[in-house]
Amino acid sequence: MEPEKNIAAGDAEAPVVPSQIEVGGELADNVQALVEEGQRGMVLNLVADLHAADLGLLLEHLPADRARTLFHWLSTEQGGEVLPELEDDFRATLLEEVRSERISALLDEMPTDDAADVLADLPAEVVEEVLPALEDKEELAELLAYDEESAGGIMGTEFVAVPEHWTVEQATEEVRRQAEHVEPIYAVFVVDSKQALIGGVSLKRLLLSQPGARMGDILDTDDLSVLAVLDQEDVARIMERYDRVSLPVVDGLKRVIGRITIDDIVDVIRDEAEEDIQRMVGVAGGEEHTDSVAQVSRGRLPWLLTGLVGAGISASIIAYFDQTLQQAVVLASFIPIVQSTAGNAGIQSSAIAVQGLASGDVWTSDLLRRIGKELLVAIINGVALAVALAAAVLLLMDAPSTSVLAFTAGLSLVIVIVLATTIGATVPLVLDRIGIDPALATGPFITVSNDIIGISVFFVLATLIYLS
Amino acid sequence: MEPEKNIAAGDAEAPVVPSQIEVGGELADNVQALVEEGQRGMVLNLVADLHAADLGLLLEHLPADRARTLFHWLSTEQGGEVLPELEDDFRATLLEEVRSERISALLDEMPTDDAADVLADLPAEVVEEVLPALEDKEELAELLAYDEESAGGIMGTEFVAVPEHWTVEQATEEVRRQAEHVEPIYAVFVVDSKQALIGGVSLKRLLLSQPGARMGDILDTDDLSVLAVLDQEDVARIMERYDRVSLPVVDGLKRVIGRITIDDIVDVIRDEAEEDIQRMVGVAGGEEHTDSVAQVSRGRLPWLLTGLVGAGISASIIAYFDQTLQQAVVLASFIPIVQSTAGNAGIQSSAIAVQGLASGDVWTSDLLRRIGKELLVAIINGVALAVALAAAVLLLMDAPSTSVLAFTAGLSLVIVIVLATTIGATVPLVLDRIGIDPALATGPFITVSNDIIGISVFFVLATLIYLS
Repeated sequence: MEPEKNIAAGDAEAPVVPSQIEVGGELADNVQALVEEGQRGMVLNLVADLHAADLGLLLEHLPADRARTLFHWLSTEQGGEVLPELEDDFRATLLEEVRSERISALLDEMPTDDAADVLADLPAEVVEEVLPALEDKEELAELLAYDEESAGGIMGTEFVAVPEHWTVEQATEEVRRQAEHVEPIYAVFVVDSKQALIGGVSLKRLLLSQPGARMGDILDTDDLSVLAVLDQEDVARIMERYDRVSLPVVDGLKRVIGRITIDDIVDVIRDEAEEDIQRMVGVAGGEEHTDSVAQVSRGRLPWLLTGLVGAGISASIIAYFDQTLQQAVVLASFIPIVQSTAGNAGIQSSAIAVQGLASGDVWTSDLLRRIGKELLVAIINGVALAVALAAAVLLLMDAPSTSVLAFTAGLSLVIVIVLATTIGATVPLVLDRIGIDPALATGPFITVSNDIIGISVFFVLATLIYLS
Repeated sequence: MEPEKNIAAGDAEAPVVPSQIEVGGELADNVQALVEEGQRGMVLNLVADLHAADLGLLLEHLPADRARTLFHWLSTEQGGEVLPELEDDFRATLLEEVRSERISALLDEMPTDDAADVLADLPAEVVEEVLPALEDKEELAELLAYDEESAGGIMGTEFVAVPEHWTVEQATEEVRRQAEHVEPIYAVFVVDSKQALIGGVSLKRLLLSQPGARMGDILDTDDLSVLAVLDQEDVARIMERYDRVSLPVVDGLKRVIGRITIDDIVDVIRDEAEEDIQRMVGVAGGEEHTDSVAQVSRGRLPWLLTGLVGAGISASIIAYFDQTLQQAVVLASFIPIVQSTAGNAGIQSSAIAVQGLASGDVWTSDLLRRIGKELLVAIINGVALAVALAAAVLLLMDAPSTSVLAFTAGLSLVIVIVLATTIGATVPLVLDRIGIDPALATGPFITVSNDIIGISVFFVLATLIYLS
């Protein structure tokens, strides 16, 4: 366990990232054994110095009942710190049998943004019981009203805002007053007489300015802010693009109602990237490593079934051409070739298109240029593959009129790659245009349609050219 | 163009994310027209208030020669700010015809981490000319020695470190002295008499502590740091897990040699996620929207060719079973069904495995449990799909002994899904174990091998059961 503690405590002599893989497992085994023996004191000693994030991972790797016991033993402080680090579903399970008094105490330990996240996943009747007992009940009730994936859903209500006529000394005093409450703090927001945001003063500038200077005179007039309804992905894009570590959230009158910090945005970026990958491979609902077999199966089955239906259409196209196949059973060998090439080319161009859209690097004015570029790439790669395939047919296959077969196969491949690439590049752009998340539908849609197109093209050409 | 400027300037009345798509395109068109007319003053006026990130996107969307002209017109300050925002290849093109005096001047405007990035992409002879003229030439020469994707490769040499016996007042004075040079600044590092890192003091604590307090007495002893050789992905994981906005980089004697800030880490997380997606769909070398047709084609062709070879193996398996197909050409219809189901099931489980490994959520001690879970999921989903397929065969197909065919097809599908899922979940773990980046090889390897396995299983079973 030593290396694990080193990392949590940051020993620079061993700063290589924890091979969590080894270390975490060993620590988990030890903790599990001690929990089973009821060694409360020893366990708490072992986990006392762990960072909340590491303790969270440890809990997630214990069997559910052991995790419950350990969580029950934790102090309110450590319990409150670890809860925000857990996967949503796992956290909900962990809290199932916890008394509402303890839940309230745990929530009071957390920043409001984390507390709102935890509350959002609790059953409504538990929330009703817990909420009125909380210190920040009004703020939390407001936060709960926002969509979980909006700026309002990820913001906290902890921030320091001062009037522009205040001095640096007064503002510093205000930071001191709220120091324990607002953590971390990177800047003080400055508002006008109507409480509307007019800018910010970084802690650095606050530290280096004369105590008597007016906040209104030293503020950075770059008053970038977002409305609470803005989607968290857009918030992430703004903070990322403009290198912000904190961003004020304002209401319609530009009054500051919350603050988003970069640590939350880092989580958003990571989560959205994982979600995009999962959607692209047809896994629905955000699979987590703590999910049950039933949850995992449910998330993956829809796309497997859709794929089966799609493949069924391909199958019926092949059945339709059974006369063709009867005449030349050798054609069956080309089914996996057109199918996988169509799939590969389509998924390449569609993944790139989805990425371009997600990053905001692609503009409407680029569309034609982009599609033209994809078309050129498709023609180059299509011809390269067609030549390779035709050569292979000529050299390796033993069939009647091999040269015609080679020509048919090569031509099919060019057409299939051009179609698959163009469809792959175009569909996400169209989906985005009509307001559907391109990551959601792209993978499955592209794969199924390109399979069908690939097989159709090949059999039509084979019937027309090779067998005529 | 107004909304674009609003975003850059942060007008809270219009805080919705730039529909970059519309706005950017319009601005780009206007700027392009003005550049063509040689309206230097008007163009510079238009872009004067743009954030460097927006100006960078604008440059990337202009035709190459117009971008060069506009870049040539920019002041050293604005030019220096925009360079770090550009895609590597595009930046290299832009700098091709720029005199080395101007390159030096531009580099002197940048923080060392950005300057090192720009230098790393310049041709060796240009670096030799430019480097000796730079203000920070020694620091930069050192930074250039590190791998671009290591902690040393992304760190800057700007940081404030003070001895533990200094007072808060002295430390504040040091921050003031370096204020212009070190931007942003979140914490002051504290070192012992041997210059070794012992902790940090956040600006907040510096601001709120008594001027006479000793730094050694108020420091946060959590001296988390990394060595310069650590991979940037691991640095990202550490800063993400422990919610850091800056992290010191130390040498073997724990002396601070640099600092990594969260904005760079956000870029790392985004880039690595994009790279993972691209690798999974078989796009090599990190395709960027500014890449040329030849670059895009080169990045995608290798995997298309590999896929073609893999499909060729599937094709030869089908050819090997041509007697079977001769007897029952109906079997050809099942090729797309087993192939796409195997592909879909395999890519689902492999993507999840790759993600688990990347996030550090998966421990060696979990491996057996994880594979067991995947096996259960595969059996459940396999049976569900097999039943659906068998029912479809019975109801829709018109072939001799349909019930035997339905049984054969269903059984094949269960076996294929179980094999494909298990292989998908296991291969990334094995690759990771033997030190190969699982994201790199997973997509192509899984797809090809599952195709081959799926088709083999089906034809063996069809020959043994259906045709016997």
